[in-house]
Amino acid sequence: MAEVVAIKRAPEGPVFSDLENGILRITLANPPANVLSIAAMTSLQGELDRARDDKAVRVIVLAATGKLFCAGHDLKEMNARRTDADKGKAFFEETFAICSRLMQSIVRHPKPVVAEVDGIATAAGCQLVASCDLAIASDQATFGVNGINVGLFCTTPGVALVRGLKPKHAMEMLLTGEMVDASAARDFGLVNRVVPREYLTQIVTKYAQTIAAKSPLTLKIGKEAFYAQAEMGLTEAYEYASRMMVENMLARDAEEGIDAFIGKRDPKWTGE
Amino acid sequence: MAEVVAIKRAPEGPVFSDLENGILRITLANPPANVLSIAAMTSLQGELDRARDDKAVRVIVLAATGKLFCAGHDLKEMNARRTDADKGKAFFEETFAICSRLMQSIVRHPKPVVAEVDGIATAAGCQLVASCDLAIASDQATFGVNGINVGLFCTTPGVALVRGLKPKHAMEMLLTGEMVDASAARDFGLVNRVVPREYLTQIVTKYAQTIAAKSPLTLKIGKEAFYAQAEMGLTEAYEYASRMMVENMLARDAEEGIDAFIGKRDPKWTGE
Amino acid sequence: MAEVVAIKRAPEGPVFSDLENGILRITLANPPANVLSIAAMTSLQGELDRARDDKAVRVIVLAATGKLFCAGHDLKEMNARRTDADKGKAFFEETFAICSRLMQSIVRHPKPVVAEVDGIATAAGCQLVASCDLAIASDQATFGVNGINVGLFCTTPGVALVRGLKPKHAMEMLLTGEMVDASAARDFGLVNRVVPREYLTQIVTKYAQTIAAKSPLTLKIGKEAFYAQAEMGLTEAYEYASRMMVENMLARDAEEGIDAFIGKRDPKWTGE
Repeated sequence: MAEVVAIKRAPEGPVFSDLENGILRITLANPPANVLSIAAMTSLQGELDRARDDKAVRVIVLAATGKLFCAGHDLKEMNARRTDADKGKAFFEETFAICSRLMQSIVRHPKPVVAEVDGIATAAGCQLVASCDLAIASDQATFGVNGINVGLFCTTPGVALVRGLKPKHAMEMLLTGEMVDASAARDFGLVNRVVPREYLTQIVTKYAQTIAAKSPLTLKIGKEAFYAQAEMGLTEAYEYASRMMVENMLARDAEEGIDAFIGKRDPKWTGE
Repeated sequence: MAEVVAIKRAPEGPVFSDLENGILRITLANPPANVLSIAAMTSLQGELDRARDDKAVRVIVLAATGKLFCAGHDLKEMNARRTDADKGKAFFEETFAICSRLMQSIVRHPKPVVAEVDGIATAAGCQLVASCDLAIASDQATFGVNGINVGLFCTTPGVALVRGLKPKHAMEMLLTGEMVDASAARDFGLVNRVVPREYLTQIVTKYAQTIAAKSPLTLKIGKEAFYAQAEMGLTEAYEYASRMMVENMLARDAEEGIDAFIGKRDPKWTGE
Repeated sequence: MAEVVAIKRAPEGPVFSDLENGILRITLANPPANVLSIAAMTSLQGELDRARDDKAVRVIVLAATGKLFCAGHDLKEMNARRTDADKGKAFFEETFAICSRLMQSIVRHPKPVVAEVDGIATAAGCQLVASCDLAIASDQATFGVNGINVGLFCTTPGVALVRGLKPKHAMEMLLTGEMVDASAARDFGLVNRVVPREYLTQIVTKYAQTIAAKSPLTLKIGKEAFYAQAEMGLTEAYEYASRMMVENMLARDAEEGIDAFIGKRDPKWTGE
């Protein structure tokens, strides 16, 4: 890569980020459970939004401090609003609207997002992992969608789960509320790889570096098209995907990349 | 749970059921192959319909007597109608309408349905397993969609299969008509777990007890929403799922469950 | 089977075919990388089209000569057209239209198509494998969708991948551009089985023989219905699939097959 940019912001929580060599590392830092309070979700949304058009950001890693990756929604914050005149209805609507927008922002983000999961990821925390393009877990990580245990079915996490896992695996987690270990999460397709805890960040960074070395324009075209065509019928998907391929072929980076490949040299991306 | 209800009906076939501790155990008892004759399907549909609004039923286990779980449609019953004036067309239409309604009744049922599979499950019998929310198989169970062997492609079973298995796994079973063992069925996502035959009922009952201890209202909201959102595009799915989460949050059981969680006590569900 | 037909055409490339015992073996023979040039795709499309209504063809095997199965599009052919007045746009559109039609012709083909993969399958070559109904790979086969490495995201291959693989597995391949071995391809659901290289053709032929012994009419009805219902909602899928089952039941081959099953004799298919 041409440039090395490193911006370290003070970890003043509930979310902070570091940018180094094109890799934006967004870290949940909302102890003790990294819950997705309104403040945490707004902060995370802000980091994602800033990264959209920031050319220095090539790939995003979503990580967390502490022993929990993320315990989902802030149930205390939500419960406190039951004394509102509407029994909390407006606040709950706002909460799930913010959360659903956040999860879709990951899927629709022009930069690939890789989850780095150590510790416990439950409910909307598990949904975060499921919403990322890739996920690497430490062998100590555990996963659950356990809202059923408190009478609140993990219905919005189910949106992410059913698109990544087989329905019987998703339903086993959703109906029983039981935690699964990292190995089961890999078998279910919730995470791509399980690695020893002490190598987690190193291996995630290696993945991120691999992706950061690709053409950002090509990643943008490709990621957007991937999730868009997945929702179409086969004929429509091929028509749409073919148009995207032509657009991609006509871009400067494809011309450069194919020319470099034929000439057996390294490509130089301009992102155009 | 507050109540213990046990109703044992005489196994006069082709289907009978027992209710104990909130677990309705529906058993196929149509020897020798538990085929889905019109009588068996009608009887099974009746058991499912009765359980819909029966508050004593928290979870349903679908099991079978004998060495076969279920061998699918009653081919002799069907073949006998080829002498009808319409060569059986009306009867075949009725058969597949009843069967398709039955399978959808499992998916759309407000109570979770767990298949307990020992022995052979073929064609519509395999479809039954695929249609359940969860499935636990004995290590002696085998599975197949072998209609192709008699010139009748398992097209309706394929509806359930393609929604649970990867297409190449489904097509391997559908095109070759060959049986797969319990281990392959687990790898394919057709069943959740494979256990020793002698522990099958015990382990299924443990799963059922776990689920029966949850809020029935929450299970109903969650299960319905899960399969509904799976058919939507991502944006629509999140809008719908968010509405369901708010509805769930405002229900008495979520208030109780979250309050109990925060207060570190066991919740008491009212199902409201 | 009633007839043995063997037609051997001279391997004059870029694609040739052999028909033996109902198995049409189509072989990519476009050295050194079996790239999908316009000529190769047109030739392959021609073989598929001829096989549609050829009653002697029961099942199709898609294989390749040489160490590579298929390296995808002919990047040199494409790059050469950048000097066109429109910078190649019309040619790229034609290329992806031909390719997308080819891939859909496999999915929509009335005869089952089995990929026999030895060596490397990349980009549109990997898409070919993903588009087949079944795929058997040698333990030396490797797979990748590595267009990202040359600045051209494998967006059209992604159409086939997302319908067969879990999205995180597809995205890992698409974003990193890295090759996966045959074992990973099997775990991802890209291929059905991995076998020793020296037994590859023998085992693929066994699969093909198994399928060739089924009723061709039943295979046609079933394959078409399988992919069609997969794109529908559950209710619509069951209505459509039920109609197809009735149509299938009323066909001569189902009557013969069920009659043979009940009479414990071998069926004789007429394909009607």
